[in-house]
Amino acid sequence: MEKVVVIGLGLIGGSMALSLKQNHSRKIIGIDLNSDHAQQAINLGIVDKIGELTTVSDAAIVIIAVPVDAIPDVAVAVLDLIGTETLVFDVGSVKERVCDRIKDHPKRGNFVAAHPIAGTEYSGPEAAFIGLFKKKRNMICEPEKTHPKLLEKACALFEELEMKTEMMCPLEHDKHIAYVSHLSHISSFMLGKTVLEIEPNEATIFAMAGSGFESTVRLAKSSPAMWAPIFMQNKTNVLKSLEEYIRNLETFKKHIENHEKKEVFRIMEETNRIKNILNGISK
Amino acid sequence: MEKVVVIGLGLIGGSMALSLKQNHSRKIIGIDLNSDHAQQAINLGIVDKIGELTTVSDAAIVIIAVPVDAIPDVAVAVLDLIGTETLVFDVGSVKERVCDRIKDHPKRGNFVAAHPIAGTEYSGPEAAFIGLFKKKRNMICEPEKTHPKLLEKACALFEELEMKTEMMCPLEHDKHIAYVSHLSHISSFMLGKTVLEIEPNEATIFAMAGSGFESTVRLAKSSPAMWAPIFMQNKTNVLKSLEEYIRNLETFKKHIENHEKKEVFRIMEETNRIKNILNGISK
Repeated sequence: MEKVVVIGLGLIGGSMALSLKQNHSRKIIGIDLNSDHAQQAINLGIVDKIGELTTVSDAAIVIIAVPVDAIPDVAVAVLDLIGTETLVFDVGSVKERVCDRIKDHPKRGNFVAAHPIAGTEYSGPEAAFIGLFKKKRNMICEPEKTHPKLLEKACALFEELEMKTEMMCPLEHDKHIAYVSHLSHISSFMLGKTVLEIEPNEATIFAMAGSGFESTVRLAKSSPAMWAPIFMQNKTNVLKSLEEYIRNLETFKKHIENHEKKEVFRIMEETNRIKNILNGISK
Repeated sequence: MEKVVVIGLGLIGGSMALSLKQNHSRKIIGIDLNSDHAQQAINLGIVDKIGELTTVSDAAIVIIAVPVDAIPDVAVAVLDLIGTETLVFDVGSVKERVCDRIKDHPKRGNFVAAHPIAGTEYSGPEAAFIGLFKKKRNMICEPEKTHPKLLEKACALFEELEMKTEMMCPLEHDKHIAYVSHLSHISSFMLGKTVLEIEPNEATIFAMAGSGFESTVRLAKSSPAMWAPIFMQNKTNVLKSLEEYIRNLETFKKHIENHEKKEVFRIMEETNRIKNILNGISK
């Protein structure tokens, strides 16, 4: 039996456990500080049993799927305990901090800094499902720092999940992901907040909000426990993206104020080319 | 045969024509300034034939589905031409301007100021489909100014489209819709613009953008020809909503800057109650 330890049994860790469990030659041990989540993971058949951190010592694979602020410490604790053949990877949405933290660890070669780009607005073990990762992208940072054999093993595992893996340096990863993921979450949360403030009578929102609002505000359902640490850990890039977003909103507002309809039209028309990009994502 | 004239054969007018055409006792005449759209509407079987504005004179129903900046003039032109029994309604997303423009027209009683809240990010006759309005809301403003018999006829027609109609005064309508619809479109367009500016290499966006980005930026595919006039015509409310949105973004940014994680968490957690509202919309 191949022993797989999954630390953090939320949407991502839980879905990974469920997916890897389909291969019956694996035994999945779950770890979660939240005992309700641990119990749910057992009840839902996401893991075979619940273990302690020391259980990683004879594991074949250890997956770290805790909130990003906890990843660096957990990564060090895990690397301290594992044997020479164990593959350890994290799935966090920010990569510079963890890479930096473990860079001089004697077991750095056992670690893969990964970011499988998949998720929904739901969280916890109950949100986990097989197929979350299917046809999605996975990013791996600093592949040259992982033992080639273990890197290969990690890549095979992501392929098993039907993911396409690309390599990227942590600095680049954190910069790009701020724009295409973290900023979307903030724009959505703030849209939700603005509407809730102006519309204390929720019946009006029910009545008048259509599918457009639903789509733009969907991410405002996301878990603060997962996302607050992401914004904090990727602070510099998130702030920069937010600044540019706010500047664009200010400019657009000014054009409306001055009744510069042509300018408003031009900006929207130029932005329409996002169509081609979205077609690419959907494919 | 009941003669129905649809002015403006885009997503909304086209879908309305298609839906009403299912009743074969109707003859649908289409009008569109854009001759390509008119030809497409014929080719796609959206309308039975293309006509001139004068054709409204003996119509039973006239639907005004042109961009909102053109609605007031078209409404007056149509009311000038129709007979005493004709029902005229518009479908625009801003209601104050058109209501104000026709308030003293001798045929005001023939007019219904409607806003069927339905749409997609696509536009033109090719985007039209039967079922766009199904299970969606329709708002009617100033119902007391329409002849009761014609108001009843309009309500029956929206019921035929499987819409639920609610009444609301134009000022209230324009205020609420700015928050739950117009602001979503601006937040989405500016998100798209910000990402396109920072990521001139579109391959990176393809690679790293997930379903979250796709959802929040979807509305940035919308038609500038439809939306620029909406922002302009609902200027006061749109500016107010934008101002509050920007203020919320600035405050959130400040909390991240100052590393006030608890505050960031709290704001997100409070905003999570949008879940209940979205469940209401989806039902």
